[in-house]
Amino acid sequence: MTLQRPPVNSLNLDLLKEMSKSLDEIAKNKSKAMILTSASPKVFSAGLDIMEMYKPDLKRVEEFWTTLQEVWFKLFGSNFITAAAINGHAPAGGCLLAMSCEYRVMTGGNFSIGLNETALGIVAPNWFMDTMTNTIPVREAEYALTTARMFNVEEALKVGLIDEVATDKDDAIAKCKGFIGKFDRIPALARSITKLKMRQAAIKRLQDGRREDLNEFLQFVQNPKIQKSLEMYIQSLKKKA
Amino acid sequence: MTLQRPPVNSLNLDLLKEMSKSLDEIAKNKSKAMILTSASPKVFSAGLDIMEMYKPDLKRVEEFWTTLQEVWFKLFGSNFITAAAINGHAPAGGCLLAMSCEYRVMTGGNFSIGLNETALGIVAPNWFMDTMTNTIPVREAEYALTTARMFNVEEALKVGLIDEVATDKDDAIAKCKGFIGKFDRIPALARSITKLKMRQAAIKRLQDGRREDLNEFLQFVQNPKIQKSLEMYIQSLKKKA
Amino acid sequence: MTLQRPPVNSLNLDLLKEMSKSLDEIAKNKSKAMILTSASPKVFSAGLDIMEMYKPDLKRVEEFWTTLQEVWFKLFGSNFITAAAINGHAPAGGCLLAMSCEYRVMTGGNFSIGLNETALGIVAPNWFMDTMTNTIPVREAEYALTTARMFNVEEALKVGLIDEVATDKDDAIAKCKGFIGKFDRIPALARSITKLKMRQAAIKRLQDGRREDLNEFLQFVQNPKIQKSLEMYIQSLKKKA
Repeated sequence: MTLQRPPVNSLNLDLLKEMSKSLDEIAKNKSKAMILTSASPKVFSAGLDIMEMYKPDLKRVEEFWTTLQEVWFKLFGSNFITAAAINGHAPAGGCLLAMSCEYRVMTGGNFSIGLNETALGIVAPNWFMDTMTNTIPVREAEYALTTARMFNVEEALKVGLIDEVATDKDDAIAKCKGFIGKFDRIPALARSITKLKMRQAAIKRLQDGRREDLNEFLQFVQNPKIQKSLEMYIQSLKKKA
Repeated sequence: MTLQRPPVNSLNLDLLKEMSKSLDEIAKNKSKAMILTSASPKVFSAGLDIMEMYKPDLKRVEEFWTTLQEVWFKLFGSNFITAAAINGHAPAGGCLLAMSCEYRVMTGGNFSIGLNETALGIVAPNWFMDTMTNTIPVREAEYALTTARMFNVEEALKVGLIDEVATDKDDAIAKCKGFIGKFDRIPALARSITKLKMRQAAIKRLQDGRREDLNEFLQFVQNPKIQKSLEMYIQSLKKKA
Repeated sequence: MTLQRPPVNSLNLDLLKEMSKSLDEIAKNKSKAMILTSASPKVFSAGLDIMEMYKPDLKRVEEFWTTLQEVWFKLFGSNFITAAAINGHAPAGGCLLAMSCEYRVMTGGNFSIGLNETALGIVAPNWFMDTMTNTIPVREAEYALTTARMFNVEEALKVGLIDEVATDKDDAIAKCKGFIGKFDRIPALARSITKLKMRQAAIKRLQDGRREDLNEFLQFVQNPKIQKSLEMYIQSLKKKA
């Protein structure tokens, strides 16, 4: 599955819907495995599209968040094997997608990865946190989440946020295939049940609190202070461009 | 406590009953500590005896699983100090026994340890998983459980699945005694309550779900696909022999 | 906030009340951050004052424990940034205070830190344990808590019980300020909500079990065996002095 929404694979409603549909198809085809990567040369995914949150239409923004939840359920809780070939920057939602996979290979270079929501004045929801503590130690997660830490490739490898470093995208995909090959002689059903049992607590937590999680997000995007800081952020991006 | 069921200490109903009784006696004697090891030169324990699961008598297999649960309660939740001198291979149930102790010393050499259930098409139950995440990080546990990873001694030491490496069985037992000696000046009651508080969540989880866990296992052994893969596995063992 | 109760900052009722009041003031002043350190040259804090537990007046000891719970809620669950400049020994309650902060810098030298309650025949309550597993891995916490392990500075750094080593108190405070400086461009509200979400499970656990936790402590201090071992410990201290 290749993310292809130039220039930086911002996750807007359309892209999330596409992803949700693709994940359904992969499941229906009884595919053995999926590798998630990006068509952009320098960005894996820039995360949630801020324009979906800025001066939002309530109905659309509700669908936006619900679809993001669905993508996570289908990716984090997939029956098939998932690996991320992270061939560029992966902040916020981009990092979430990568962490939702079972294995992460990142191309070396000047790229960074992390849940840096707080830098924009945003709070990562509980399931982002659960996905992170499924990957790195609690102590590292608290530090990273509060300080909006972006890990470079070496740091990400050291803390366990990624599993391997690759020289380029092809190498990253080859290494993901190497991971997938480990399951060649493992019965698929036992493998997938085992995975889901390990992830059950986090999945159940969002299932049980899905409506509450949506309400929290809706309140958040309707908060004038948040709108103000999004506006300032968007203007700073425009100046850069 | 020395496991002695040649050639590989497969955990059948009889051995589990013996272990359960021995653990009761150790508790009744108010023994300070217990070291778990094997009489076999190359195998700590090969894990659950597959013959208990193959074409099972329902009443016996129910007792088999219930007794395994009991052994775990008595070992993982013991008041006395527990250490494992792992003097050989420790796959699946063998690894579970070792992880249920408070300290693990493994003899160097060509031995390996891990919960490799998925390789046989089996799913480790929740309490196997809880015992593993009590020992190594969640991320490492998910990877190891899904890929049926067997750790060699160096890998096991690095990830924390074992605490020390020994030159041979005597050295392993000496090192276990070294661990036990750390408690010489620690009041026993405070020590054991502290241990049980740390393990309480995992113990309670199986206590609350004990019947459900048994039912899951009974359904599992009555599944024709599972019987088929057990049959194939047994035949592959016969060919080797 | 500087602990100043010579010679070793034992946490008695008066000091805990002072701390509770100071933490309220810091919160009311909307201070950005707080650094916790000690006025003593060699001890950060020796932990709970054993004299509060020895032959206790029931009303006072109840207030003592309730105030300790309050200090923990206000420190572990603070909105403002917290860092500990650990300029000396930090056993038991001293370690708890340090672990309740978000960052720990310890001055090098012959100092040690750890939850060594079991050495005195005391059991660390659940929230001490939760605070520790928020900082170091579960496996390390079980080992440390049962063996009453005191970590030297190098060991503490390696396991993650502290984050940095300093040459002296000034350097420790400077390094804490360095940590606090990481939040200069992070919106304060997003930061504090993120912190509290990460700590929510532990906070809720004590909130829900606060009365039960108090009762456990009251039973504990009324146990003749505990009084006996406290007496022996106090006499051994007198002999040393």
